[in-house]
Amino acid sequence: MQTKSLKGRDFISTLEFTREELDSMLELAAVLKADTASGRDHLLLLRKTLFIIFYNKSLRTRNSFETGMTQLGGHANYLDSEKIYTPATEGEEKAYSTERVSDVARVLARMGDGIAIRMYGKPTGWMYGNGNKYLREFAKWADVPVINMEDDMYHPCQSMADVLTMKEKLGDLRNKKLVVSWAYSPGVKKPGTVPQCLMATASKFGMNITLARPDGFQLDPMMIDAIKENVKKHGGSFEETDSMEDSFKDADVLYPKSWGSLACVPPQTSEINVDKMKTLFDKNKDWICDDRKLKLAKPEAIYMHCLPCDRGYEVADSVIDGPNSVVFDEAENRLHAQKGIMALLMR
Amino acid sequence: MQTKSLKGRDFISTLEFTREELDSMLELAAVLKADTASGRDHLLLLRKTLFIIFYNKSLRTRNSFETGMTQLGGHANYLDSEKIYTPATEGEEKAYSTERVSDVARVLARMGDGIAIRMYGKPTGWMYGNGNKYLREFAKWADVPVINMEDDMYHPCQSMADVLTMKEKLGDLRNKKLVVSWAYSPGVKKPGTVPQCLMATASKFGMNITLARPDGFQLDPMMIDAIKENVKKHGGSFEETDSMEDSFKDADVLYPKSWGSLACVPPQTSEINVDKMKTLFDKNKDWICDDRKLKLAKPEAIYMHCLPCDRGYEVADSVIDGPNSVVFDEAENRLHAQKGIMALLMR
Amino acid sequence: MQTKSLKGRDFISTLEFTREELDSMLELAAVLKADTASGRDHLLLLRKTLFIIFYNKSLRTRNSFETGMTQLGGHANYLDSEKIYTPATEGEEKAYSTERVSDVARVLARMGDGIAIRMYGKPTGWMYGNGNKYLREFAKWADVPVINMEDDMYHPCQSMADVLTMKEKLGDLRNKKLVVSWAYSPGVKKPGTVPQCLMATASKFGMNITLARPDGFQLDPMMIDAIKENVKKHGGSFEETDSMEDSFKDADVLYPKSWGSLACVPPQTSEINVDKMKTLFDKNKDWICDDRKLKLAKPEAIYMHCLPCDRGYEVADSVIDGPNSVVFDEAENRLHAQKGIMALLMR
Repeated sequence: MQTKSLKGRDFISTLEFTREELDSMLELAAVLKADTASGRDHLLLLRKTLFIIFYNKSLRTRNSFETGMTQLGGHANYLDSEKIYTPATEGEEKAYSTERVSDVARVLARMGDGIAIRMYGKPTGWMYGNGNKYLREFAKWADVPVINMEDDMYHPCQSMADVLTMKEKLGDLRNKKLVVSWAYSPGVKKPGTVPQCLMATASKFGMNITLARPDGFQLDPMMIDAIKENVKKHGGSFEETDSMEDSFKDADVLYPKSWGSLACVPPQTSEINVDKMKTLFDKNKDWICDDRKLKLAKPEAIYMHCLPCDRGYEVADSVIDGPNSVVFDEAENRLHAQKGIMALLMR
Repeated sequence: MQTKSLKGRDFISTLEFTREELDSMLELAAVLKADTASGRDHLLLLRKTLFIIFYNKSLRTRNSFETGMTQLGGHANYLDSEKIYTPATEGEEKAYSTERVSDVARVLARMGDGIAIRMYGKPTGWMYGNGNKYLREFAKWADVPVINMEDDMYHPCQSMADVLTMKEKLGDLRNKKLVVSWAYSPGVKKPGTVPQCLMATASKFGMNITLARPDGFQLDPMMIDAIKENVKKHGGSFEETDSMEDSFKDADVLYPKSWGSLACVPPQTSEINVDKMKTLFDKNKDWICDDRKLKLAKPEAIYMHCLPCDRGYEVADSVIDGPNSVVFDEAENRLHAQKGIMALLMR
Repeated sequence: MQTKSLKGRDFISTLEFTREELDSMLELAAVLKADTASGRDHLLLLRKTLFIIFYNKSLRTRNSFETGMTQLGGHANYLDSEKIYTPATEGEEKAYSTERVSDVARVLARMGDGIAIRMYGKPTGWMYGNGNKYLREFAKWADVPVINMEDDMYHPCQSMADVLTMKEKLGDLRNKKLVVSWAYSPGVKKPGTVPQCLMATASKFGMNITLARPDGFQLDPMMIDAIKENVKKHGGSFEETDSMEDSFKDADVLYPKSWGSLACVPPQTSEINVDKMKTLFDKNKDWICDDRKLKLAKPEAIYMHCLPCDRGYEVADSVIDGPNSVVFDEAENRLHAQKGIMALLMR
């Protein structure tokens, strides 16, 4: 376990952490989960403050961070981005309505002990990478940890909860088959952060990863390269396919989820092209995880989803509410995984 | 005192609790009130989280729950319903904008220790009973206590604070005369939860209850039946009248308050009929609790109101700010009554 | 140090406190700051609640109060004014949408331990003094401390943080030269609370104060009189000039900041006259604190600003990010100054 290298660091992408560092967070998460189950009190972040800034809706992320800070003895200040002066980078500023990120970050860093941010989609102009750029700008100026609560590239806290859940269910993850698959939804304005960040994280644990997606739903090539690098270093394998059914065969873990096409958002287009996105989606309405497809996987395969899910489109009710589903364990693990991360970074 | 039967239960209507169970909550409330007065620290819900979800405005309810959780050593997460994915029941869902209640409830139950909800009026489409149905759906799926912060049928935490206040002022409530009366207001979009829930609760304590209301403002017949059942079991009496003045005679407690007509909302109409509602209201502008009417009650009668009140319409300033008024004691008792409820349910 | 005279008092303007009382708060603030730096736990306001009601945006104020309450062992309930029944004074009420201030104040006072309010500009109809009147109305009815988080006359918590910062940097403030100067901004809807409240506070500490402003940007004559009174009693001096450059000469402290003209808002006009305001502003675009002007002050002079600032207009980046700037120390001192105030008032 790493006891010293984590204090004060930002948590924006798991790519910036070693396998051993991630394991340290997950080990602590498991201990803190047991403590909560048995009612053992934590004062690890006593009277400390985490600012949680949201540019997008949230149920799980907000409440797991806020509840987590309470369980650790501190407090999370929930900040609706409309109620503060809008943080803006140089050149985007509007007098008395925006405030430069460098100022916001430095002020908050002086008052509290960590800054967590969610920013993707509309507030970033749908320009891929823009949300991440904002978080990096915050991290550049804040000398307290900046934690990514989902930008447009990464959702590392979700990925950590996912790995924690897989470890609980499967034990050693080496050479277990993880299928990350696109799925259909009538709602098309979705980032691809969850699948690519999950694979980038799971590939550090030696899993055999299959990415299934229709043509047009390729993920960020930089992330695919990073996954391949991880495979080289940590073992396991990575392959891509355009058949949901093929991918499910002998799977240990199924993670089917909808995401938008990078071909329909800037910089590939001048603005988000919803019509083109819908056309692409509608070609693939059969990409649903239903009972028939579930049977292609191992009988004890687990079904995962970060939630919220679009029932009847991404997944059949019988699957998500059935015996293979672990989605509520997964949601609860957001809480414990993040406590492990915060306790090591913000102490 | 009941020490075991309350843990883990939902608090949606007082009808589902025995008189002895309600008394247990009120006894604890009184103890916790004395503790606050003397500065004795509570750790009854140390580091626990209550989610408080609001579909409507709130001053007293939100702040009494949030302050109450702080006083008990825990924390209330204030959730504005617009900032989470809107909870929806099966068939009402919209991709990536709503989330099925079964999922919201199960996720929150995994993270925190209780879920409190306020939902009536517009967010329910004004369909009488719809708000309560939502709460029941939450309760069905959440295995932590669900607490009703006012739906369209019940406001049980208000009723408990009201009973606590009456006990403080009048002692034994048996055969004390409680008058629940309609009152005029220019604002007509109001649920009838407070009066009917109060009578359903007070009738477990053997009070003599008079309900005064103009024609058109009858309350839910199911609730009236429940009140009559309680009277049979617990003593006291119940009667209805259409004269505010008659009802006030020899009263120990006056509770005059405006509420909307069930005849003007679904399922009686296809949608809320505000014009018809206004016409009904305007026929009864003289239903105000003023000094003249106050004199009809016992000299030491107490004037109560859940607040906010429409001054000059429901009540004269001289009454609500006069010596008979106990409205601020009543408001403070929200805090202590709810601490008693939460401490027994959520421990 | 005053140990008893402060408990239970309101903090609406520093004018109502003696120099010794203000010093007591600042002394405690310095102790609490050292405690935070060393990790010493505070339970000064254990399980206590401060209500923080915002009619305007806030980054520093909200987060310093919320973080401060956490550090002292209590909790701040963040209240968005749109989510409660709008507090209104007699005659301004609208049924079931507003609630009389006397009721709001008394209810909150019964539940929590303090009420802090921010209200200026649009929610006050831009009528100068209206925001302050609201706060005074709250204070009249609430028997817990009411704390001013900025109205349209005073920003006393900012002023206390400013004095704390000046003391840290300059030691004894007697006869140190403080320059409060108007500065240009394209955003014209700004109250003049910060400059006039700062001078009213600093003049209790014997500073030599120069107020620089173009014609049309005179501050409230009542405040100017109060400053002159303070100078008579506590030493130091006060003068006004219409030259930014003249004022900077030999300054120890530069506080250049934009504010709106009292000549363009009620009661001087019937409503806020933005066009006239813009014309007045645009005549004075050269009122920027840049490197050239900075050189007119003492070499070790400190540059201060309450933030947010309009970079490139009020101040050059090179000044606010340069070696003379203490703006982030100043922002952090909001936290500690307010802890000193709250701990003495709310205990």
